[in-house]
Amino acid sequence: MKIGFIGLGHMGAGVAANILAAGHELTVWNRSPGPVKALAEKGAHVARSPEEALQGEILFSMLATDNAVREVGLDGALLARARPGLVHVNLATISVDFARRLAKAHADRNVDYVAAPVFGRPDVAAAGGLTVIVAGSKAGVGKVRPLLERIGRRVETVGEAPEQANLFKVAGNFMLAAAIESMGEAFALVRKGGIDSRVFHDVLSNSLFACPVYQGYGSAIVAEKFEPAGFPLRLGMKDVGLALEAGRDFSVPLPLASLVYNHCVEATVAGFADKDWASLGKLLATKAGL
Amino acid sequence: MKIGFIGLGHMGAGVAANILAAGHELTVWNRSPGPVKALAEKGAHVARSPEEALQGEILFSMLATDNAVREVGLDGALLARARPGLVHVNLATISVDFARRLAKAHADRNVDYVAAPVFGRPDVAAAGGLTVIVAGSKAGVGKVRPLLERIGRRVETVGEAPEQANLFKVAGNFMLAAAIESMGEAFALVRKGGIDSRVFHDVLSNSLFACPVYQGYGSAIVAEKFEPAGFPLRLGMKDVGLALEAGRDFSVPLPLASLVYNHCVEATVAGFADKDWASLGKLLATKAGL
Amino acid sequence: MKIGFIGLGHMGAGVAANILAAGHELTVWNRSPGPVKALAEKGAHVARSPEEALQGEILFSMLATDNAVREVGLDGALLARARPGLVHVNLATISVDFARRLAKAHADRNVDYVAAPVFGRPDVAAAGGLTVIVAGSKAGVGKVRPLLERIGRRVETVGEAPEQANLFKVAGNFMLAAAIESMGEAFALVRKGGIDSRVFHDVLSNSLFACPVYQGYGSAIVAEKFEPAGFPLRLGMKDVGLALEAGRDFSVPLPLASLVYNHCVEATVAGFADKDWASLGKLLATKAGL
Amino acid sequence: MKIGFIGLGHMGAGVAANILAAGHELTVWNRSPGPVKALAEKGAHVARSPEEALQGEILFSMLATDNAVREVGLDGALLARARPGLVHVNLATISVDFARRLAKAHADRNVDYVAAPVFGRPDVAAAGGLTVIVAGSKAGVGKVRPLLERIGRRVETVGEAPEQANLFKVAGNFMLAAAIESMGEAFALVRKGGIDSRVFHDVLSNSLFACPVYQGYGSAIVAEKFEPAGFPLRLGMKDVGLALEAGRDFSVPLPLASLVYNHCVEATVAGFADKDWASLGKLLATKAGL
Repeated sequence: MKIGFIGLGHMGAGVAANILAAGHELTVWNRSPGPVKALAEKGAHVARSPEEALQGEILFSMLATDNAVREVGLDGALLARARPGLVHVNLATISVDFARRLAKAHADRNVDYVAAPVFGRPDVAAAGGLTVIVAGSKAGVGKVRPLLERIGRRVETVGEAPEQANLFKVAGNFMLAAAIESMGEAFALVRKGGIDSRVFHDVLSNSLFACPVYQGYGSAIVAEKFEPAGFPLRLGMKDVGLALEAGRDFSVPLPLASLVYNHCVEATVAGFADKDWASLGKLLATKAGL
Repeated sequence: MKIGFIGLGHMGAGVAANILAAGHELTVWNRSPGPVKALAEKGAHVARSPEEALQGEILFSMLATDNAVREVGLDGALLARARPGLVHVNLATISVDFARRLAKAHADRNVDYVAAPVFGRPDVAAAGGLTVIVAGSKAGVGKVRPLLERIGRRVETVGEAPEQANLFKVAGNFMLAAAIESMGEAFALVRKGGIDSRVFHDVLSNSLFACPVYQGYGSAIVAEKFEPAGFPLRLGMKDVGLALEAGRDFSVPLPLASLVYNHCVEATVAGFADKDWASLGKLLATKAGL
Repeated sequence: MKIGFIGLGHMGAGVAANILAAGHELTVWNRSPGPVKALAEKGAHVARSPEEALQGEILFSMLATDNAVREVGLDGALLARARPGLVHVNLATISVDFARRLAKAHADRNVDYVAAPVFGRPDVAAAGGLTVIVAGSKAGVGKVRPLLERIGRRVETVGEAPEQANLFKVAGNFMLAAAIESMGEAFALVRKGGIDSRVFHDVLSNSLFACPVYQGYGSAIVAEKFEPAGFPLRLGMKDVGLALEAGRDFSVPLPLASLVYNHCVEATVAGFADKDWASLGKLLATKAGL
Repeated sequence: MKIGFIGLGHMGAGVAANILAAGHELTVWNRSPGPVKALAEKGAHVARSPEEALQGEILFSMLATDNAVREVGLDGALLARARPGLVHVNLATISVDFARRLAKAHADRNVDYVAAPVFGRPDVAAAGGLTVIVAGSKAGVGKVRPLLERIGRRVETVGEAPEQANLFKVAGNFMLAAAIESMGEAFALVRKGGIDSRVFHDVLSNSLFACPVYQGYGSAIVAEKFEPAGFPLRLGMKDVGLALEAGRDFSVPLPLASLVYNHCVEATVAGFADKDWASLGKLLATKAGL
């Protein structure tokens, strides 16, 4: 199949490589040349303009911010020059509101739009092990699903409105942040009572909480190891902010999300923005005088 | 070994049966006669007074409230009539402060005191699968450890001051409550955005959150099934309250524990005290107009 | 002086009448004709298009929402057709971010822009008793200050960047909301202890808290009188939301503002959006089972 | 009238002096001799034991902590040796729960017990300007009211159960703390937006918030002047803790009180325990990076 790919950051590059490995004809475009080169060596065609990437059957994009989407033109002008019948699959975590506007911008120009944000870190993306949350028209989703199954271990369709996939994603990331917060408070409490937080973490993350979030982030907090950042605090904060924004739009009170967000602000002030967001646990230890 | 057991509620009865099954000579006492009878049929000796239960090498107790401990006299008078060399193992979740006072009361009367609160529900207790958190003097813990290994799948020593085991336990229960709160908010959010919360729960509790807490409590919230209560909200609320009390004593700010506690109060006002504490999720749905 | 006025809602109409009463030549424009008529009878000139209102020395506007500002064109096109030297005074409470963008839009078209949001309700506006918070260029502020002193009892310049006046205003409104929240919690607490909340309110609002906010909102909470709404909850919620938005932009953690905002969401779900925002107190009583 | 007075701290000494000045025969007792001497010079009789202070018609006490009350014996033994018909007026801010137990201890020994906690600082006490909140039996309150009117500008009876006066007091002190929190957040917000917090405070505390709490504490926050402490943070924290305890007992969710309490813990960790509790404002500025 002829496929385009725009946005080859840490996550995008891994996904693109998997699509290429599946035997598709891939045209890639990126603002900076580095990641393009590596894919070209594996057989990808390098586009000279973003427009070229829209001339296949499917376009994937994974641009980190709303602004990047706008600069490339994927919220407007560029869409008008897409090959008829193109389906655009947006893998990025964007706000529910922006997702809704993007969906409309695509509909206005007869481009099918599927939102497919993913759970997983760069190494998981490279290994094809992502969890992919999909929402969009039945036709669009049907067309791209086989491809998504190449890049993810699990592909779950959650609705027909693209923004629903984004809502799903930010709600999930909020739960991650909440788990970090709860460990941060609990670890600080037991430590001040003279208990080794490694033992506390070890017991719980091998019983009631025997799952990746508590094992991984918990170990990071216990070891105070926040660099290199698997997921930097500033991005986590952005996602919790998007959950709050959605809560506002849907009239859902989210006191725990608010609490976590405020702690992210404090952590940012404390200089943790580029550390892993498990460093929230460090902030909570500091508040307790540890 | 000659062992006594006081307090045969849902949890205690299962533990006592396991000790009996291990071939020990067990003397049991309970305020109400029902559970005593069942154990007598399995070979336990029925004490006519609590005092009789203190004439072995080890006494286990599992009394639900501080008051019950006081009424039986385990915080004072009764201890003076214990067999010399007795080790008292308290399996109940009590406050850090009360644990400290009990430890002192025992030391004053030369009775060794070991705190051994457990994680697990009655069915887990009956199956010998509890996680047992132990703290106390090296000698005392050494003496009781083999027995604890009969009643628990995992036995973890966390310190020499008995109250440390209680701190460990309430900190763990707080983390449980926090997980419920985070699911409650996240589920409300996705539902108001038109997403099936079963799908949301299914995806997350089979990936990032693939562990008993998220699987079990999450299912209960999704199904709005809070009866019969595996763990009633009023007990969960008590434990979060104990975490807050410990936070106050050790100067640890616990904003998330405070948040959960306040929601427990609201849930109590709403009539959920005897429902499973997963019903916090119902409260959060209600706040969002669901 | 030749002055224009756009936006004759409850607040705007009172301010416009005061300007007229001061002997100025006033050209008014409003989307709906009702309020225009009343002012015309007092001698105001009725504009047939918004543009006419920009042909004097000063233009006042008091449009309730960002959208209204955009629809009229005061963020763009319309400004290009203003009389050279015009100073636009925006009396509305808008977001810090939108204020910043408006300031830029005016600068690009050589129109001086002064932000002058006000504290006070419609009756205070009609009586010329508002507190006016002003920010803008020295020249612009200097030109409009005498007029502002006609509409306000107190006029305070707080900076040269127009958005600073808006920040000041939303921070002040947040403090109002916080006072309501604190009364709501305190009143619920004393009531459940059998104390008459009228006595509690009477004592405090005549001693430590002897000021309009506690007297006025407190009386409303005690009497559970939330209609007609002096200031509807949905507008209060909007302002607390603007404070949070500013907190995010300036990296200021605002846990109390977050708390109040979440309660506003709950109150909205409970149907209080158009009641006075003192009805937050009612929400808090309900949470306590009152 | 023959009156006893136990507890001559900063507050008690001023009150005792006012009673003396009203021409009563006053017998004073204090653990440390300093304040006793000053009152003796003004004509007070110095008791050699607390018991002597219970031989008049009325006993006032103002002991800072529950423990002090217990050590003196006012919760038990000492009461049995009181002159028949004695009314004990407790001016201290104690917990609702302890008030209830004290009331019972007095009833058991036929001593009338009136709770009369006060609002006001030492200088206000010395000037006879306190606000006195009274609860107790009609007979007891009737007997002591004329005296209370000598020590307070306003005397308000709020119920017949003594603990109601204590509930009133801690609810009021919570409102104070909430006002400090709200100023702390608002001041931090405007400062980061480049506004002079003195101007912000000046405008608000002379309009909507023109009352002692906002004027006094606000000035302290703006000037960052927290020493000498008019009311030390550790005492304010104790009172907010008592409000939370009452909220727990009466099933009233108090999220704002919880928030303030957690900030008090953080402030304590930061070393502010003995500073004025307006230093909460400093904590909030620090969180914002100011």
